[in-house]
Amino acid sequence: SSVDKGVDFANYFCTYAFLYHQKEMLSDRVRMDAYFNSIFQNKHHFQGKTVLDVGTGSGILAIWSAQAGARKVYAVEATKMSEHASALVKANNLEDVVEVIEGSMEDITLPEKVDVIISEWMGYFLLRESMFDSVICARDRWLKPTGVMYPSHARMWVAPIRSGLTDQKLNDYEETMDDWYNFMNDTKTNYGVDMSVLTKPFSEEQKKYYLQTSLWSNLHPHQVIGTAAVVKEINCLTATVNEILEVKSSFSSSITLENTRLSGFGGWFDVHFRGRREDPAQQEIELTTAPRPDNGTHWGQQVFLLHPPIRVSVGDGLNVSFLMKRSKENHRLMEVDLSCEIKEYSGKLLPAFNKKFYIE
Amino acid sequence: SSVDKGVDFANYFCTYAFLYHQKEMLSDRVRMDAYFNSIFQNKHHFQGKTVLDVGTGSGILAIWSAQAGARKVYAVEATKMSEHASALVKANNLEDVVEVIEGSMEDITLPEKVDVIISEWMGYFLLRESMFDSVICARDRWLKPTGVMYPSHARMWVAPIRSGLTDQKLNDYEETMDDWYNFMNDTKTNYGVDMSVLTKPFSEEQKKYYLQTSLWSNLHPHQVIGTAAVVKEINCLTATVNEILEVKSSFSSSITLENTRLSGFGGWFDVHFRGRREDPAQQEIELTTAPRPDNGTHWGQQVFLLHPPIRVSVGDGLNVSFLMKRSKENHRLMEVDLSCEIKEYSGKLLPAFNKKFYIE
Ligand SMILES: Nc1ncnc2c1ncn2[C@@H]1O[C@H](CSCC[C@H](N)C(=O)O)[C@@H](O)[C@H]1O
Ligand SMILES: Nc1ncnc2c1ncn2[C@@H]1O[C@H](CSCC[C@H](N)C(=O)O)[C@@H](O)[C@H]1O
Repeated sequence: SSVDKGVDFANYFCTYAFLYHQKEMLSDRVRMDAYFNSIFQNKHHFQGKTVLDVGTGSGILAIWSAQAGARKVYAVEATKMSEHASALVKANNLEDVVEVIEGSMEDITLPEKVDVIISEWMGYFLLRESMFDSVICARDRWLKPTGVMYPSHARMWVAPIRSGLTDQKLNDYEETMDDWYNFMNDTKTNYGVDMSVLTKPFSEEQKKYYLQTSLWSNLHPHQVIGTAAVVKEINCLTATVNEILEVKSSFSSSITLENTRLSGFGGWFDVHFRGRREDPAQQEIELTTAPRPDNGTHWGQQVFLLHPPIRVSVGDGLNVSFLMKRSKENHRLMEVDLSCEIKEYSGKLLPAFNKKFYIE
Repeated sequence: SSVDKGVDFANYFCTYAFLYHQKEMLSDRVRMDAYFNSIFQNKHHFQGKTVLDVGTGSGILAIWSAQAGARKVYAVEATKMSEHASALVKANNLEDVVEVIEGSMEDITLPEKVDVIISEWMGYFLLRESMFDSVICARDRWLKPTGVMYPSHARMWVAPIRSGLTDQKLNDYEETMDDWYNFMNDTKTNYGVDMSVLTKPFSEEQKKYYLQTSLWSNLHPHQVIGTAAVVKEINCLTATVNEILEVKSSFSSSITLENTRLSGFGGWFDVHFRGRREDPAQQEIELTTAPRPDNGTHWGQQVFLLHPPIRVSVGDGLNVSFLMKRSKENHRLMEVDLSCEIKEYSGKLLPAFNKKFYIE
């Protein structure tokens, strides 16, 4: 591939080398419960089996797999976190079962094929980080024809929302621009240089930053003001990289709240642990990052804001075209084109709009 | 050199491609006044001369050089900021004099040698970013034997300080560790994994982050509690990369304040614009980042904290060994070894101590 390993490490992997960051994931109870239950309520998938943990981090999923009775677990980790994973495996007396391998999944080789691939590969809004590519690569090379994927399925959701962030971000942007105009005057007065030609590029840079970059947020269910739609479904056993390069969807949503405002859209995901059709889970487990009143996940939701917000009311219909692509500069970041048409309950059609967003 | 260009761009140059970041530097009045005065009060160095601006950023120094009467200015910039610099040059009607060249200084070639090299290459505590390497490279290849350097001299300073940050950072560290112990218990109870083997590496990681990483700070002169010492002097016309790889100094400092505490050390720098011995400045200009009551610079000072602080009083003497090296992982970051011996005014010698710090 055309990705420079060193650059990818500097931009992406580096954060995972900190225990602090692993701890944040290990402290996410929703995440932990889902993986824990998926393993221990489906021990038949692990007992006496060989398992591959793609991106083992601290080693937690590998350790659970071993505790659930796996014969052998290969725990692959690209960063130096692998050393901590080894220590943790040893301290929990599992070094006979779990073999930690430092290296990137794409580069290393295993001595055998495996029955199970387990991985926690999900980034913000599922696909940010593009780590599922590495899981696909692992699956195509190392999963037995009868093997199962943990998780087995994934979905992306989008819904209309209201949020105070719209005003806040617009304010931030406007303050930054006011400040720019002062700066421009000062620079002309004190230093004899006319900066006005940079006003447009500066405002574009700041618009991108404040208005077009999606935000991490922990939405309350009350902030979701219309029906949510699935924009992508992934079968982890069969998906190809080609299938996830783009997420393209046209969907409708109905506003379910009286007299409110459409501040933008929220995006989240869920994954399921269902095993394989011929070898299903005994207990299907779901991990969802949808808005909930309590106990959010560390993924939160991604919020795409409209400026200004639009008044809508119950029964209004949205027709949305959603297109998410990888950023050309960094394949682990995303760009979203969203267009939306609002048909009021009365039948009146509002002018359609088109927005570009960045998931950074 | 062994530095991967792509990695260096991802880690270092990328921030300079934002107008927001350039604007921060352009809004630093102390910095701007110093360069502005150094040029316009020494026009004889610029009138009819050829100038090279190493790392032109927005183009400001190149534009001033042209406004001061330069015949030709080469303005070299590694990032896409070069496009904004070109636009700014044109908008200020200087495109006949200023030629913006996009590329890194090490790679590009000029059609002629120059009379003046001007550059704002100073990072936190002078040498962070290691950008002076590029100025040296430019000088050795492109400066005429009679040429002058802007700035011409640079110095690094260290002084004993008091600061409330010591307690704050120690608290932060202790809270993080309390949280770790809770996390460890929860993980054992809920998920059956004993994390205690990671306590030591986690605490080391957090100690490095909270206690050993030097801090940006805008110190008030009252916080300087003893005499300041120069730990490095650089003659920009003759310095070699070899000379700046390490900064090694043994110095003494006397506490000048009654009954206070030594919280650590502050580091800052100054540079001077003196021209060249045979072709001196008409007005010598100084740019200092020393603590001052008002109008700090964006560089502030770097603070190296001791935990816990040590009670000292007027007349106590410090003997300090200071060694700063480049980090092995990233040549633009620094590591500091500092050892200190305190001789109280009474003659009593306190036990010496040894600290390691990171300038990240
Ligand atoms: N291609 C690849 N090869 C090996 N490790 C990878 C990888 N891509 C990502 N990773 C690693 O995968 C981990 C994802 S975070 C999940 C960590 C752990 N499985 C847990 O559930 O807590 C990170 O530690 C990251 O460094
Ligand atoms: N080796 C190199 N070649 C070209 N540009 C470099 C460089 N090393 C650093 N730079 C650039 O040097 C600039 C330093 S910041 C100073 C910008 C401008 N001269 C001003 O005074 O406002 C950055 O824009 C950075 O991208």
